[in-house]
Amino acid sequence: MKPRHAFYAQSGGVTAVINASACGVIETARAHPDRMGTVYAGLNGILGALHEDLIDTGKESTEAIRALRHTPAGAFGSARYKLKGLDENRAEYQRLIDVFRAHDIGYFFYNGGGDSQDTAHKVAQMGAQMDYPLVAIGIPKTVDNDLPVTDCCPGFGSAAKYLATSLREAACDVASMARTSTRVFILEVMGRHAGWLTAACGLAFEAAEAGPLILLFPERTFEPHAFLQRVRQNVSQHGYCVVAVSEGIRSADGKFLAESGLRDAFGHAQLGGVAPRLAQLIRDELGFKYHWAVADYLQRSARHLASKTDVRQAYAVGRAAVRFALEGYNSIMPVIRRKSDEPYRWRVGKVSLGQVANQERPVPADYISSDGFAITDAARTYLRPLIEGEDYPPYRSGLPDYVRLKNLLVARRLPPFTS
Amino acid sequence: MKPRHAFYAQSGGVTAVINASACGVIETARAHPDRMGTVYAGLNGILGALHEDLIDTGKESTEAIRALRHTPAGAFGSARYKLKGLDENRAEYQRLIDVFRAHDIGYFFYNGGGDSQDTAHKVAQMGAQMDYPLVAIGIPKTVDNDLPVTDCCPGFGSAAKYLATSLREAACDVASMARTSTRVFILEVMGRHAGWLTAACGLAFEAAEAGPLILLFPERTFEPHAFLQRVRQNVSQHGYCVVAVSEGIRSADGKFLAESGLRDAFGHAQLGGVAPRLAQLIRDELGFKYHWAVADYLQRSARHLASKTDVRQAYAVGRAAVRFALEGYNSIMPVIRRKSDEPYRWRVGKVSLGQVANQERPVPADYISSDGFAITDAARTYLRPLIEGEDYPPYRSGLPDYVRLKNLLVARRLPPFTS
Repeated sequence: MKPRHAFYAQSGGVTAVINASACGVIETARAHPDRMGTVYAGLNGILGALHEDLIDTGKESTEAIRALRHTPAGAFGSARYKLKGLDENRAEYQRLIDVFRAHDIGYFFYNGGGDSQDTAHKVAQMGAQMDYPLVAIGIPKTVDNDLPVTDCCPGFGSAAKYLATSLREAACDVASMARTSTRVFILEVMGRHAGWLTAACGLAFEAAEAGPLILLFPERTFEPHAFLQRVRQNVSQHGYCVVAVSEGIRSADGKFLAESGLRDAFGHAQLGGVAPRLAQLIRDELGFKYHWAVADYLQRSARHLASKTDVRQAYAVGRAAVRFALEGYNSIMPVIRRKSDEPYRWRVGKVSLGQVANQERPVPADYISSDGFAITDAARTYLRPLIEGEDYPPYRSGLPDYVRLKNLLVARRLPPFTS
Repeated sequence: MKPRHAFYAQSGGVTAVINASACGVIETARAHPDRMGTVYAGLNGILGALHEDLIDTGKESTEAIRALRHTPAGAFGSARYKLKGLDENRAEYQRLIDVFRAHDIGYFFYNGGGDSQDTAHKVAQMGAQMDYPLVAIGIPKTVDNDLPVTDCCPGFGSAAKYLATSLREAACDVASMARTSTRVFILEVMGRHAGWLTAACGLAFEAAEAGPLILLFPERTFEPHAFLQRVRQNVSQHGYCVVAVSEGIRSADGKFLAESGLRDAFGHAQLGGVAPRLAQLIRDELGFKYHWAVADYLQRSARHLASKTDVRQAYAVGRAAVRFALEGYNSIMPVIRRKSDEPYRWRVGKVSLGQVANQERPVPADYISSDGFAITDAARTYLRPLIEGEDYPPYRSGLPDYVRLKNLLVARRLPPFTS
């Protein structure tokens, strides 16, 4: 009997290592040709399944698939597209099953964050309801590190390493300029609801030397007075001050600071940019010269500075997804389980999709100092191993040599989808 | 006869490799103990000389000095401090000579951009006028790459490599998200008057594949209509658009775009951030979802991604400064001379300080495409070798292990300076 095929899709914001998970899926599937057929990847994530845009990864060379391991972002295209509930839009789930049936797809691998695990869970349920035999496995991914159960999320460690390194470097810069020029440097980082990336910035300084640093977590209400006082204090004590701020900090009225009242010449509200907002506050209230940076996509695509631990874990959850599927598990997600902090040891475990869907894990209270501006030793113990090790991509002509796949589509067998 | 000591100072904005030049100066001086005494470094640049804050680099270990080669920013502190003209403030120059005399300093090494070469030139003149034997040598440094005569400026190649890599990575990101989310990504880069770093962003794409990219040079007037038309065209043709913009672009009225009319809730003008300004324009006129990043200090301190060519050249001009001084040259600056493009060959030459002081070299017209939005093949030929090669710093606990020097000061011998 011919083995059934697999469908793999990338979902939501991409990372420096989501393609390493894809590499793990495809290489592991290829190692079991008797038990798993071709891996079809969704062009632009789940949209590829809905519109029957299936990329035949079988047309890619061994070398090209291997190169996914060192290539950032979503090689097949990702999508911000949340399927509605089963009752609200049954047609979409029905369509997925129709497409899978048309192409004899028996395995569904969905690589994403909390929303995506919820989708994978629903697809598994739909398969059962429609009496279509389907194995649905989630694969964790998010720079936000906010999935429950798993010790960490692939993608986070590399973004964390990038941010901590960048802040350490920028701190060297401002420290050397502070006598006559910039006193305050502000770096805005991602993580609208959970401050894991903000916490990672705490690693830029050793615990004993973190005096000049202020962290602003979305888990804490932004208090301008306390913040400005600390800025003044840091400049007075250390000559300079470095701030890492989550894009998602809110003032006491619950509003995002990034949306608080900036208007252009035409009276339009200006969106985005909490760093310039803070800079302005510092200028107006303290008069210090400042610089600010917004890392934005740079932090989640910086494969040139990936964490080796993160790359390995991303690959491992991809590989484990296929192995678990072949072992007969269904409706689960591989997770990272920490066995020890130092030396750092971990293994891949599993959790049922129902347990991870639509849950967020904020930074625990005991990872944030009592004044709210720093990380604790507990946070350092947790974070440190996740940024450990370098995993440099190959370079050509001075630049990282990232692969671009052929992404050839399989011939369609169904009429177009109209939802 | 005891050899005379040397004074070394860092000036202006720091770079990822200015400490490599310091390393070249100090290691080369140490190799000739019979002909050059201790290198005293100015604490916070030239201020260290004015206030007699002289760092005794002789107290630093061989390993610490070696580690300067892989440590970004200014290890002794830099300064944005321009000495006035000889006629306007003779007292400052007089003070420099007094301090040099008090510490038997016979060599003056000044590591900076155009302004600093002008200062070095004046110090040389002052020494001659005051009949104080002094050898004054400039050492080139600037991420802006705008010094004349030299083929390139140490500091530029690493910032260029960082920006081209970052933009390549962010382009992978937006390309994978464009179907359902972000269509336009904007990266703001340094270079207020000269668009060398903007040009470097052109390397992120191969010439034949640069379709989605738009470069906005300070050498060209910003024309909103033409820009928006090209954004629309790129999104339509490629699905997405990537923009690299110089912080210094101006509209037809000569105003910096970054200062054009943003007001906060209190009516204060908001300074800085041409990227968010462009993003807003795109949102208002085209309605595309966008993301933007401002690299700011990250681009000039990113030692983790330094160009090996740049590190070598930075070290070489430091070493050459000492060698030229010992050979009897005065009032000169070492420069990089290109001997061939491919394979790339270069050597260190020299130029008199009078020829480089206070001159800026913009991007040549034939490096910018006729529509103003791209670089030409001539630009690629020039830029490519400058980002060639990687030179990774050592890592400890997942982060670059940068050195912090002891920076012990020599006992003062003069009364305080009051200008």
